[in-house]
Amino acid sequence: MDYLRDLPFEDIGYAKVDHHRSLRNGYPEVIYCEGKSIEHIKGIVESMLKKDNNILATRASKEVYEGLKDLTDDIIYYDLAKIVFIKKKEIKKSKSKILVATGGTSDIPVAEEAAITAEVLGNSVERLYDVGVAGIHRLLSNKHRLLEANVIITVAGMEGALASVVGGLVDKPVIAVPTSVGYGANFNGLAALLAMLNSCASGVGVVNIDNGFGAGYLASTINRQIELALNNY
Amino acid sequence: MDYLRDLPFEDIGYAKVDHHRSLRNGYPEVIYCEGKSIEHIKGIVESMLKKDNNILATRASKEVYEGLKDLTDDIIYYDLAKIVFIKKKEIKKSKSKILVATGGTSDIPVAEEAAITAEVLGNSVERLYDVGVAGIHRLLSNKHRLLEANVIITVAGMEGALASVVGGLVDKPVIAVPTSVGYGANFNGLAALLAMLNSCASGVGVVNIDNGFGAGYLASTINRQIELALNNY
Amino acid sequence: MDYLRDLPFEDIGYAKVDHHRSLRNGYPEVIYCEGKSIEHIKGIVESMLKKDNNILATRASKEVYEGLKDLTDDIIYYDLAKIVFIKKKEIKKSKSKILVATGGTSDIPVAEEAAITAEVLGNSVERLYDVGVAGIHRLLSNKHRLLEANVIITVAGMEGALASVVGGLVDKPVIAVPTSVGYGANFNGLAALLAMLNSCASGVGVVNIDNGFGAGYLASTINRQIELALNNY
Amino acid sequence: MDYLRDLPFEDIGYAKVDHHRSLRNGYPEVIYCEGKSIEHIKGIVESMLKKDNNILATRASKEVYEGLKDLTDDIIYYDLAKIVFIKKKEIKKSKSKILVATGGTSDIPVAEEAAITAEVLGNSVERLYDVGVAGIHRLLSNKHRLLEANVIITVAGMEGALASVVGGLVDKPVIAVPTSVGYGANFNGLAALLAMLNSCASGVGVVNIDNGFGAGYLASTINRQIELALNNY
Amino acid sequence: MDYLRDLPFEDIGYAKVDHHRSLRNGYPEVIYCEGKSIEHIKGIVESMLKKDNNILATRASKEVYEGLKDLTDDIIYYDLAKIVFIKKKEIKKSKSKILVATGGTSDIPVAEEAAITAEVLGNSVERLYDVGVAGIHRLLSNKHRLLEANVIITVAGMEGALASVVGGLVDKPVIAVPTSVGYGANFNGLAALLAMLNSCASGVGVVNIDNGFGAGYLASTINRQIELALNNY
Amino acid sequence: MDYLRDLPFEDIGYAKVDHHRSLRNGYPEVIYCEGKSIEHIKGIVESMLKKDNNILATRASKEVYEGLKDLTDDIIYYDLAKIVFIKKKEIKKSKSKILVATGGTSDIPVAEEAAITAEVLGNSVERLYDVGVAGIHRLLSNKHRLLEANVIITVAGMEGALASVVGGLVDKPVIAVPTSVGYGANFNGLAALLAMLNSCASGVGVVNIDNGFGAGYLASTINRQIELALNNY
Amino acid sequence: MDYLRDLPFEDIGYAKVDHHRSLRNGYPEVIYCEGKSIEHIKGIVESMLKKDNNILATRASKEVYEGLKDLTDDIIYYDLAKIVFIKKKEIKKSKSKILVATGGTSDIPVAEEAAITAEVLGNSVERLYDVGVAGIHRLLSNKHRLLEANVIITVAGMEGALASVVGGLVDKPVIAVPTSVGYGANFNGLAALLAMLNSCASGVGVVNIDNGFGAGYLASTINRQIELALNNY
Amino acid sequence: MDYLRDLPFEDIGYAKVDHHRSLRNGYPEVIYCEGKSIEHIKGIVESMLKKDNNILATRASKEVYEGLKDLTDDIIYYDLAKIVFIKKKEIKKSKSKILVATGGTSDIPVAEEAAITAEVLGNSVERLYDVGVAGIHRLLSNKHRLLEANVIITVAGMEGALASVVGGLVDKPVIAVPTSVGYGANFNGLAALLAMLNSCASGVGVVNIDNGFGAGYLASTINRQIELALNNY
Repeated sequence: MDYLRDLPFEDIGYAKVDHHRSLRNGYPEVIYCEGKSIEHIKGIVESMLKKDNNILATRASKEVYEGLKDLTDDIIYYDLAKIVFIKKKEIKKSKSKILVATGGTSDIPVAEEAAITAEVLGNSVERLYDVGVAGIHRLLSNKHRLLEANVIITVAGMEGALASVVGGLVDKPVIAVPTSVGYGANFNGLAALLAMLNSCASGVGVVNIDNGFGAGYLASTINRQIELALNNY
Repeated sequence: MDYLRDLPFEDIGYAKVDHHRSLRNGYPEVIYCEGKSIEHIKGIVESMLKKDNNILATRASKEVYEGLKDLTDDIIYYDLAKIVFIKKKEIKKSKSKILVATGGTSDIPVAEEAAITAEVLGNSVERLYDVGVAGIHRLLSNKHRLLEANVIITVAGMEGALASVVGGLVDKPVIAVPTSVGYGANFNGLAALLAMLNSCASGVGVVNIDNGFGAGYLASTINRQIELALNNY
Repeated sequence: MDYLRDLPFEDIGYAKVDHHRSLRNGYPEVIYCEGKSIEHIKGIVESMLKKDNNILATRASKEVYEGLKDLTDDIIYYDLAKIVFIKKKEIKKSKSKILVATGGTSDIPVAEEAAITAEVLGNSVERLYDVGVAGIHRLLSNKHRLLEANVIITVAGMEGALASVVGGLVDKPVIAVPTSVGYGANFNGLAALLAMLNSCASGVGVVNIDNGFGAGYLASTINRQIELALNNY
Repeated sequence: MDYLRDLPFEDIGYAKVDHHRSLRNGYPEVIYCEGKSIEHIKGIVESMLKKDNNILATRASKEVYEGLKDLTDDIIYYDLAKIVFIKKKEIKKSKSKILVATGGTSDIPVAEEAAITAEVLGNSVERLYDVGVAGIHRLLSNKHRLLEANVIITVAGMEGALASVVGGLVDKPVIAVPTSVGYGANFNGLAALLAMLNSCASGVGVVNIDNGFGAGYLASTINRQIELALNNY
Repeated sequence: MDYLRDLPFEDIGYAKVDHHRSLRNGYPEVIYCEGKSIEHIKGIVESMLKKDNNILATRASKEVYEGLKDLTDDIIYYDLAKIVFIKKKEIKKSKSKILVATGGTSDIPVAEEAAITAEVLGNSVERLYDVGVAGIHRLLSNKHRLLEANVIITVAGMEGALASVVGGLVDKPVIAVPTSVGYGANFNGLAALLAMLNSCASGVGVVNIDNGFGAGYLASTINRQIELALNNY
Repeated sequence: MDYLRDLPFEDIGYAKVDHHRSLRNGYPEVIYCEGKSIEHIKGIVESMLKKDNNILATRASKEVYEGLKDLTDDIIYYDLAKIVFIKKKEIKKSKSKILVATGGTSDIPVAEEAAITAEVLGNSVERLYDVGVAGIHRLLSNKHRLLEANVIITVAGMEGALASVVGGLVDKPVIAVPTSVGYGANFNGLAALLAMLNSCASGVGVVNIDNGFGAGYLASTINRQIELALNNY
Repeated sequence: MDYLRDLPFEDIGYAKVDHHRSLRNGYPEVIYCEGKSIEHIKGIVESMLKKDNNILATRASKEVYEGLKDLTDDIIYYDLAKIVFIKKKEIKKSKSKILVATGGTSDIPVAEEAAITAEVLGNSVERLYDVGVAGIHRLLSNKHRLLEANVIITVAGMEGALASVVGGLVDKPVIAVPTSVGYGANFNGLAALLAMLNSCASGVGVVNIDNGFGAGYLASTINRQIELALNNY
Repeated sequence: MDYLRDLPFEDIGYAKVDHHRSLRNGYPEVIYCEGKSIEHIKGIVESMLKKDNNILATRASKEVYEGLKDLTDDIIYYDLAKIVFIKKKEIKKSKSKILVATGGTSDIPVAEEAAITAEVLGNSVERLYDVGVAGIHRLLSNKHRLLEANVIITVAGMEGALASVVGGLVDKPVIAVPTSVGYGANFNGLAALLAMLNSCASGVGVVNIDNGFGAGYLASTINRQIELALNNY
């Protein structure tokens, strides 16, 4: 309880900006932009900038980037991933690896959100795109890459079967991200979500539809435990 | 229209028993037992027996079989498939083949409903059970069997990915049967149903959840066209 | 397994373009455009063009066509079906026939996607539009056309009853395509989808809502088996 | 408002028994038994019996009938329809007619609930069972019976297409009752319900799944208006 | 069957225009515009105009009206109801009456679609708007108007309770139209739809969400039976 | 935070029994029995009995009562409400009143759960049962009882319209409890739940389906604020 | 009943404007703008202005405000809350307090709708924003503010857990407002709605998704009972 | 691909028993019993016993245990977790720890399935039960236990908020298991599932409803990576 009491946050009225994770862990501060006005986002980023930490802004439209880019020089916009990143401190690279795989080409934006999130959180990330199960030989030809990774993120829409096949091929933690890619009875990703939750492969954890950030973050918490162990914990 | 007018059926009050398919095609007469009283089923079977055709009764509980078995000696009960079959005429075996594959062991009852339906409709049927995608090597080791078939029925619950992987391996008609095997967010087969409808593999036709009969019948209409062609159409 | 290992695909980073079907079967290469950037689509088409095969691009907006039309002269845009077709090789016409029927006028775009897909895959295709069940005499007057076909695709929105009535009139494979035509408790095609999955007629296989391509492809795999048989298999 | 104030009901604590409809219209008093204890049902029927009106108890199990049968001699149990009827006054027969049609044999219990409800409310009722659309000739052979009726109730499960075909054949009020007959993606009648709500035929009014009583009652209110007009209103 | 064979329709390729109802009944020809191109709508209307019947075009945007208005002088556009009406023949007024009631002001467009449909089909129509149950005195003050009508259409969104209260106040046929008015857990009219299907009042028939046309048409088929009876049938 | 730290609970392994509310407020300790083994329930009740507080056990089957009744003499079982109550201390009666109203007789069990919960929490409770909107005069005749209450709980299944009508008649807090009474498209109370959430009357708060306890508890927290104010706060 | 008869409303054709609440209670007149044309809104406001009461218009877009602002000088637009308020009479401030808390910054618009509604209905309102459970120390640091309030409104999207945590910390009435903030399997607020309905904390009443007005109004009816008691009732 | 080819499995007709994981990893062989006949389960276990590995049978009813217990002495039944375990080889204990926490007492069976699964897979497991968010002090008092674990499994029904609060307190991988504990709008665990997928805390991976096994297995794959790192990988 004492611990809780001391957690620092800054109250700027419409937001209570939380600094404790970045302070303790060297993590970036994170802001989720969807549904927030650009004014609010700017205010929050300004509060964060005072701490001189890295800042990760997700679901950031081009307009959000335009609104933020004069605040600092150390800002970069990842168009595909819709991520704004402000880099104030150097990022370490983990020894253990996260692999991000997609079923198709249309799943790439969500995969990039996951990959870049994991990278700015200090992880080594590999990408393996367009290896969906309708052409299973494309996945099997890359089996060695699955075996080299410590954590695997599978990103797939439509019937979302990639998670099951990958989960059957390796004994690693597999994070499954359903995407809203598809149409009709896909119901904006519900089909892939249900498929992943019902995977006949064991060891699959699912995040929300299109939630690349969540997958990248979860993979990072796992990888962090591995790194800590590698560094003699 | 003239054709329609002459289609024979027998009106027995609570049912209008339709004889025209069996008369024309040598097909068995079919009765779906669920939701019908044993008295009604007996009445319908008695009406059918007058025509001396084969009779296929699906979703038939043991009680239904008990109620029918004194009507004729030529009766057999398939316990797993819950099918009663009354054989009055010899059944031909097609040259072209239907393969029935399942994801797991629990899918076998539905697969058997499909297989036996297809068999009594005159088709050669092969079985390939427990080749789900979480152990993809079991399916790949049997790829030659997929290649030898003319029509493939895939029966799977949980995430239903088998249809997509099979559909990606062959250029044959694939009929997908979602089963209600699973639990939780499976929603009694909805997960597998949606996955199969959203298959990233082309050439997959889906039937209702647990509808082995429908799959066997559809495979049979396809195979019948092939047989007709083989026999010089 | 050896077979799988040798399947050729080209890795262009964001996509792994699969050439094996066109190489073996004379099938066109297929690209599904929805959710892909025009740059990505162009790259994939360029990779495909090297093989000198026919190319079928579905869900292609006018903008996609504009982006592709300078790559080759042999390109055509089917406006209603939203299909771009690049024709490098002559297409054969099958002897056996596919019939595409619709419930209403609003279902025509989906029907055309199915029809043109089947045509470019080498099938003879007939069209029978606006024969929905609310005016059943329009369908019955055309019963001879149902009887002449080998495979029937029924395309319908609203309550999707066309599949059941057609399935009851013929003993052919019937592929049902629910469309999102309708409103309110139609839920973007869900009503028609459920109706088709629950068809009281046997022998109906269902594809995803608005999935004309899938229906055309499935019909084609069926018809191909018939053709092979006709040509002495 | 004055009118409302004078409506008689009897307060028996757990129920406020409403007598005004039977008093004014010669209608029976109605009690819906599901979810009520047999003690409560008995109490309500005793209160009703004091008025010497006919009483219609729906969704009445055999046990309910057993609990009520000693209260009066004028009691009858319709097993299939699960209706208890207590007849204290003679019922008139309307000149105009209600036809009740079903898709299959399994829909008969719901159809009987509708038919008997309509009969005890004073209507002439015809039955036309097992005329589902998968064998459309069975319905078309009975078209004259559709034409002779003033109001038509269609009862169907599975894909519920009967309502649309009937609605297309006549210009009469059609009441559609979806039944829970079916399985899998039928979702206990949801498929038929949605199909009927989305009927491409105009002039179809839908009641709740398995609600035979509601359909019979609605048909009766329509027929009553016709009778009043026939009798010079 | 003979009757069916003779039903006239005109085949214009993308549509099979059905003339038989207007020929027999003096009904207008009907065209549902949503999802049809203006070119298709024009073609269908031109085919209809040859018969010199009245024409009712529903779900017609302003653009549809603009596209049609040069075809004939006898054309009128109902903005609120989104109806185009072409009047070639005089319309009779029924003696018996249809009342259209709404819960709120936002339900008026759907109510007007119902009212105008009923009017052009030859019915006397009354309107009673904004009498929702949250201010029940507004409905009760107008009870005499409910009592004077022969058929009542209730149009309501949100919780859709109007149908139940009206159904409890009268012994007339009540047609319930759920509207998509509301937000959140209204799910575009689903809440009102379910409420109306589950009405505790007997004698309520439900049509699709926002389906004013269907309600007007159903009310008209009912009223037509009453009129026929009044005119000595 | 200091406050939180001192909240007393007892750790009995499978449960952490929380005593702080009863200690501070004179509230009974509460145990929800569904899904717990009788052994676990007994253990929890024994831990609670040490504090000599009143104990309220909800969703308690007869078997639970049998298992508990030897622990203490001060135990009573409310059969209809499925509540076990152990009374160790006298309960005060509030001056302000809670009224519990139901739509029908079948809603009474849920209403009793609400009423008895509120009573053992120290509130004066009135009951007004079977006043559903299909016979609105039964509710209007009791309007004075609505006006005398400070908080009103409305319990209704089917279309759940009672909450809206009551909410329109009074300016009091109205708590709406949907019940699972009904069938078909009622979906176990979903219809009533959605209707209540979409009530056109303002000032309605909804609890879970069949959650009589939650309604009684919420009404009690409201009434408690009123009592505190009456007692000079 | 006499009371009901005398409730005044004004019939302006498309609306029946209800004045009785404002007349009796000093409440503002309320108009819900969504789905109404600006002409209709103006007409209703003009009818209301004759009574010289305060007027609260919710879900009012900037365009609605523009359309109304020339009708009176006493008009103000709350941009975030989308509320137009016309102040003709002074508003009292209650002694007892309502606290409005949000999980995140994106929930503020809904919270403001609740807060301003409560304020113009005469309540003292406090705001506590961005205290979601993922950083529980932000909520716990403000526990004293929860304890000082008489009624608490919790506004949250995503998993909506704020209501449960707050409900566990206080013994006050808690009103939960799910918001549509989130994406994917959030289904426009359904996730938060279900979570709030299933809260493990007792004493939580839920309103519709994004229904800030309803929450503010319900809190006000509760607070009004408290005020009446404080003022010696 | 070579690797795949050599994966050993045994074909016993109705099942293809997969031995490769246990051979390589020292993992137990796993069998999911639900939906399989006891005869099939026995056959599979007999095939597995030949390899002398540990065997984990989940969702095993008492009857399954009775059917298996004569096959070997080294068999144990975990009643609460419904797990049969056959121990042929010693299990190692990991240095890093998995913590299993539940919201309530009713969630314990699912939690035990997770805990025992993790234990037989070689992990050190701690339990922290009944720390749901409605009494947040019970969780906060145990914060040190959260901090000592490397992986945390949170098991909760109802609104499932435990995952979010725990995810906010630690920077560890959190696996969330929704349970079907609850009723009404809980929809058999859907409420908790959606809440967990929409968690506002980052780093939460979700498994299927009631899927304790999946959570235990996923936690184990994570922990295994940590152990490998600790042991110098």
